Amino acid sequence: MLAKIADVMESVRAKTPLVHCITNYVTINDCANILLCFGASPAMCEAVAEVEEFVPFASALYINIGTFSKEQEEAAIPASLKAAELKVPVVIDPVACGVISRRMQVTKKLLDLAGITIIKGNTGEIKALAGYGAKVRGVDSLEEGEDAVEACVNLAKKYNTVVAATGKTDIVTDGARTCLIYNGTPMLSQITGAGCMVGALAAAAAGSSADGWAAAAAGVAIMGLAGEMAARASGPYPGTFRVKLFDSLYTMTREDIMKGGRIECI
Amino acid sequence: MLAKIADVMESVRAKTPLVHCITNYVTINDCANILLCFGASPAMCEAVAEVEEFVPFASALYINIGTFSKEQEEAAIPASLKAAELKVPVVIDPVACGVISRRMQVTKKLLDLAGITIIKGNTGEIKALAGYGAKVRGVDSLEEGEDAVEACVNLAKKYNTVVAATGKTDIVTDGARTCLIYNGTPMLSQITGAGCMVGALAAAAAGSSADGWAAAAAGVAIMGLAGEMAARASGPYPGTFRVKLFDSLYTMTREDIMKGGRIECI
Amino acid sequence: MLAKIADVMESVRAKTPLVHCITNYVTINDCANILLCFGASPAMCEAVAEVEEFVPFASALYINIGTFSKEQEEAAIPASLKAAELKVPVVIDPVACGVISRRMQVTKKLLDLAGITIIKGNTGEIKALAGYGAKVRGVDSLEEGEDAVEACVNLAKKYNTVVAATGKTDIVTDGARTCLIYNGTPMLSQITGAGCMVGALAAAAAGSSADGWAAAAAGVAIMGLAGEMAARASGPYPGTFRVKLFDSLYTMTREDIMKGGRIECI
Repeated sequence: MLAKIADVMESVRAKTPLVHCITNYVTINDCANILLCFGASPAMCEAVAEVEEFVPFASALYINIGTFSKEQEEAAIPASLKAAELKVPVVIDPVACGVISRRMQVTKKLLDLAGITIIKGNTGEIKALAGYGAKVRGVDSLEEGEDAVEACVNLAKKYNTVVAATGKTDIVTDGARTCLIYNGTPMLSQITGAGCMVGALAAAAAGSSADGWAAAAAGVAIMGLAGEMAARASGPYPGTFRVKLFDSLYTMTREDIMKGGRIECI
Repeated sequence: MLAKIADVMESVRAKTPLVHCITNYVTINDCANILLCFGASPAMCEAVAEVEEFVPFASALYINIGTFSKEQEEAAIPASLKAAELKVPVVIDPVACGVISRRMQVTKKLLDLAGITIIKGNTGEIKALAGYGAKVRGVDSLEEGEDAVEACVNLAKKYNTVVAATGKTDIVTDGARTCLIYNGTPMLSQITGAGCMVGALAAAAAGSSADGWAAAAAGVAIMGLAGEMAARASGPYPGTFRVKLFDSLYTMTREDIMKGGRIECI
Repeated sequence: MLAKIADVMESVRAKTPLVHCITNYVTINDCANILLCFGASPAMCEAVAEVEEFVPFASALYINIGTFSKEQEEAAIPASLKAAELKVPVVIDPVACGVISRRMQVTKKLLDLAGITIIKGNTGEIKALAGYGAKVRGVDSLEEGEDAVEACVNLAKKYNTVVAATGKTDIVTDGARTCLIYNGTPMLSQITGAGCMVGALAAAAAGSSADGWAAAAAGVAIMGLAGEMAARASGPYPGTFRVKLFDSLYTMTREDIMKGGRIECI
């Protein structure tokens, strides 16, 4: 599995996938910069008058509803449909869908419209989407629970998609294959945007590799590993950690993944 | 007073208040990150279809009109009303209200609608709101003047609120109690967002402490002190300063406040 | 020419021009911070109800269409007209105008409306605007070509403006005077926002110097030089590079420009 993750990273660096993002304004800059560090090419394009023309250039489409404006919502629908038509992989990040009804409605509308390649959320969001009770608070997940894997598998089957749920242990499944990822550091929750960046990385990976499950696992594992490397380099300082996170991801080697990756296929 | 400020900081760290932000896109990422550094939980939620459902989860609501879109304006009104109904403290940052008529109108509309806990602006904005002549230039205040304290006290009484005016000397008053805060560094004006972050911190503080005056003073003093610590660690380099500002706020101790705080109650 | 660039920098520091920005949300924070580092005063003001009142305070207007919302488009038109009326210099950054029809339409509408002082794009965008075939991909230019200078000169003449085209070699021309700028580092393309920041710097420069050609060259050259200084200080680490970029621009001296500037007038 680690070799597969490393292959995905090398594929991104070789192919420079163009990732079309419609994403929240809190972390839009972080998403662009992390994509560049990963070897991908970010392009934020979110006007309804622009997206249908732009999706054909994209290797992947990333939709994150963290501060979903009316204009973003209007654009995300034709963008998703065009992506489905052209088989451009789509990654959805259903931020806070477990807390706010409109977020759940928007997410379900996007899931129903088009073939989504990856749903990337925190465990609380994924459980909410899967119809499991989940205790969420704002944008963060408080609880993972024993039924988290089951919820992920069920959701993946329901939408014939890959599900990536981030938490203390991350879960990535396509309904048939499931892995648990133990990489990460508490420092990733001391900055905003770690989850958004995972989604962006997963989109880049899906844009350069055919296996959406491996792509999602790569996005999750590589961010977790970069976080560990950054935490070692920065100590308990979130400002410095953020700087080192970009540095670590940019300089990550195949060997870093082979030695540092902690993934269990179940 | 310094012990009170330190208590507020410890209360935020203990309670992790959820701060619902409707804020400008220039510094939205900075506001989220500084709230995390402070021990609070940021949640940017600014769609009219979302805010009434989300405010009940919030410990405080922060409204900053720096790039106030029509959608943000539409959402800020029901959000404020819901907050008033549920006694969720509201902090308003009336960016550039002294220069642009629409900003003044929007600010007054929000102040008239609902019980605002804290108005946080620079001295020029506060004086403009209080009806005093003020020389402002763009988003920055050029002049403080001897009538600044009077303007703050009058504005606080008019709206039965706390007023925090930032400048070379910061002023925080609830109309009865007034303090002057001397912490800060010129480096804070060499980066964007220091004022916005003060407002966000004040909201977090108000979300975990009943005394809005102490909360506002804590937001102002802690940002000023973190700035001083960051300036000492970085020298005259704004990029590095910004990184160290987050680091300093995250690692600030009770002792840092007791030794470094410079506050005068008048 | 280097002395002229250094003069422009000193003029910005002496006059603190207020740069009114209507710019994309990916790099809006970077643009504000780089303007502060340059000695200018940024003010993001993008509501249609605000701009006509605000432009009279501005030394320059910077319009970047990278994530141009309907509200930004509505505001950019009266802002440009007011700027033309008051002879406030306007800088346009036509992001991705070569790829997306609406971007081209919006750019041409702005160019036709009002007297634009500087058009700042990458070489692909400039060639597309000038009607030359260009191979562009997303927001990045892939190819420069031998006809790049010709395209810049023709575009400058057509709109009676200054054209700055960034690429491996940067080109700045007012139709009569043309210079090539060789400063820069590949690290500038490993972060988002370098191009946007060049446009913001050019606006600040145009806001404090009468010669738009020298102002545009200064924006381009100073960003390239700051990038070189940052790359030397950071090594191949984009997170650290970004921090040092702001530091380098803030501390740049006249001597840095005289020694490090690499400009050829042709």
